[in-house]
Amino acid sequence: MENYTHNIPTVYHFGKGAISNLSSALSAYGKNVLLAYGGGSIKRTGLYDEVMGILNAGGFTVTELSGIEPNPRIESVARGVALCKENEVDVILAVGGGSTIDCAKAVAVGRYYEGDLWEMVKERGTVRKALPLVDVLTLSATGSEFDPNGVITNMKTNEKIGGRFHYPAVSICDPTYTFTVSKYQTAAGSADIMSHVMEGYFSRTDDSDLSDGIAEAILKSVVKNLPIALAEPDNYSARANLMADSSVACSHIPEYGKLSTGWPCHAMEHELSAYYDITHGVGLAILTPRWMRYILKKDATALPRFVRFAKNVFGLQGEDECALAFAGIDALENFFKESGIPMTLTELGIGTEHFEAMALHANRGGRLDHAFVTLTTEDIVNIYTDCL
Amino acid sequence: MENYTHNIPTVYHFGKGAISNLSSALSAYGKNVLLAYGGGSIKRTGLYDEVMGILNAGGFTVTELSGIEPNPRIESVARGVALCKENEVDVILAVGGGSTIDCAKAVAVGRYYEGDLWEMVKERGTVRKALPLVDVLTLSATGSEFDPNGVITNMKTNEKIGGRFHYPAVSICDPTYTFTVSKYQTAAGSADIMSHVMEGYFSRTDDSDLSDGIAEAILKSVVKNLPIALAEPDNYSARANLMADSSVACSHIPEYGKLSTGWPCHAMEHELSAYYDITHGVGLAILTPRWMRYILKKDATALPRFVRFAKNVFGLQGEDECALAFAGIDALENFFKESGIPMTLTELGIGTEHFEAMALHANRGGRLDHAFVTLTTEDIVNIYTDCL
Repeated sequence: MENYTHNIPTVYHFGKGAISNLSSALSAYGKNVLLAYGGGSIKRTGLYDEVMGILNAGGFTVTELSGIEPNPRIESVARGVALCKENEVDVILAVGGGSTIDCAKAVAVGRYYEGDLWEMVKERGTVRKALPLVDVLTLSATGSEFDPNGVITNMKTNEKIGGRFHYPAVSICDPTYTFTVSKYQTAAGSADIMSHVMEGYFSRTDDSDLSDGIAEAILKSVVKNLPIALAEPDNYSARANLMADSSVACSHIPEYGKLSTGWPCHAMEHELSAYYDITHGVGLAILTPRWMRYILKKDATALPRFVRFAKNVFGLQGEDECALAFAGIDALENFFKESGIPMTLTELGIGTEHFEAMALHANRGGRLDHAFVTLTTEDIVNIYTDCL
Repeated sequence: MENYTHNIPTVYHFGKGAISNLSSALSAYGKNVLLAYGGGSIKRTGLYDEVMGILNAGGFTVTELSGIEPNPRIESVARGVALCKENEVDVILAVGGGSTIDCAKAVAVGRYYEGDLWEMVKERGTVRKALPLVDVLTLSATGSEFDPNGVITNMKTNEKIGGRFHYPAVSICDPTYTFTVSKYQTAAGSADIMSHVMEGYFSRTDDSDLSDGIAEAILKSVVKNLPIALAEPDNYSARANLMADSSVACSHIPEYGKLSTGWPCHAMEHELSAYYDITHGVGLAILTPRWMRYILKKDATALPRFVRFAKNVFGLQGEDECALAFAGIDALENFFKESGIPMTLTELGIGTEHFEAMALHANRGGRLDHAFVTLTTEDIVNIYTDCL
């Protein structure tokens, strides 16, 4: 087992009616609120009115940052920072999914940052002053409600960068707010959850039993609950499990004690989203099984972990370990397919045109040298090609 | 799934050499340290000298509270409070196992408490001012390094009460500090870890998949790693897994989303320790399988959960669900027995003399009415009797 530090200061309220904690959570920081949200789905669902009702009743002054993109842009961060400065905002309230929360995290740090905001995104891990952030989650996917990270896109430079900002002070996670999430976004979000876990699960560390057990628990939970949520969008138990899974999946808790892997599928997917603005979870679903087959063929020492995955996540059995390992990967691919996710890049209109550039950027600084199985830039091009 | 709030502010440093965080952790709070420890085992192992070296090098002023008992007494709490007041202590450093950390938590709150300290222990859950606490863990058992609770004993009134104080500010968890723990204490501590998980696992909530998966991961990890740690006391991986298990087991994370059960075995065991001052984990190991058989016979609706336990924790299979459920309980009892734990009250010199009084106190206020299977005072006497 490797050393680790657990330090998650977020106060996390989970369950139906958790919004009852909103007013007191904000009041701890002040009365001037920046309300950040996305394309307006919260207006259609009524959540915007519910939140505004609470804010008005609590005597808060509200400035709105709306229209945050699904892959949030640096321009939205700049807009939010300007609003915070102009309106002397005390606390940011993000209502939405991971993109909205990610953007709000960057705004929170950007409020006090001297210099270029894109440089701020790229400066991972420095200790920086920030506005406090409270969020109300509406999508089970990125885990942004329980981590300090935010992925910001710069379309001018075709870059999508995961910045390290601050943990939310308070996250309000009510599974009923995900009842209206479309089948497509529910499936894509679940692929994202699974990917966060699989990125760490496939590591050279084999003796971190609790972490591996937590990883398998999340994966099995998604395999069980996603089909239920797709068939019955208002099934509370299924939605609740997916939401709890999403928060722990990206918290690094399932990786405690394990060697870092560089999260290869995320590195490869961020290039796809940066160039083509596709849904992150869909990109991950497409890449993951192809990456798995590729590294299993490349390095036979990866076999035992894939056998374990097939057995413990999909409950498969068999004498032939190699066949079992590939059957586990097939089961994962079929699971994504049956969830309605388009499973080729071709279906998304993506061709080979940028594979070289994307592979080079995904592997910048040799960040995938220490992946579970080392990936070269050539390997990454091959994996992209397998996804066509 | 039930609602819950996750709010664990402890900064938790895990792994070999984690003590390198000690000086900066203390410095954040001041230079006047109360060093709390137990019967002196840290002097025999050299940890005392290591810690004092760090404290001297850092220019800290140290006041010592030594001799904290295995079931820490209210008198030790009072002694610590007086030392904190006399010496204007800024921060408490507890070096030891759960008893030392529990006592230090009570001292931390007692420092500012106006009134009788035993009343303070009994006043669970109130918000109270406290000194910050840093701990260095030397025993994998109670999970006190990652929860706000502390169990304090009043031998005058034969009471052992779990008080709610504050989370440690910083916990330093180096598995190598447990290499010297005796086989007996290693086994007893592991029984404590398992009990913390089983108390919540056996609940009426069946749909909290992540929590149940985490619970099973901890139980399987202990079943795998305890025999290794007993055979090879300096096996880092085994000791590390047990330490990580201990911290999460008592954190309530394995119970998130589940109906509260009242922790019946702990309620029954605290009476044994209060009357006979026995090792907490040993009392739990003796009680748990007897409690399991008793409630399974009392209420057939408990069967599916016991079948799941037999399958998922001990890997048992079988067509006859009833036989499978009891086989799982037998496997647990055998596991404790093979770990060297005395498995009857008779072996500890305990007879029937206080069963009635203990059962009445264990069930005070009807706290076990809402257990997985309701326990009456008569039931508790019967379970104690089954343990003879």
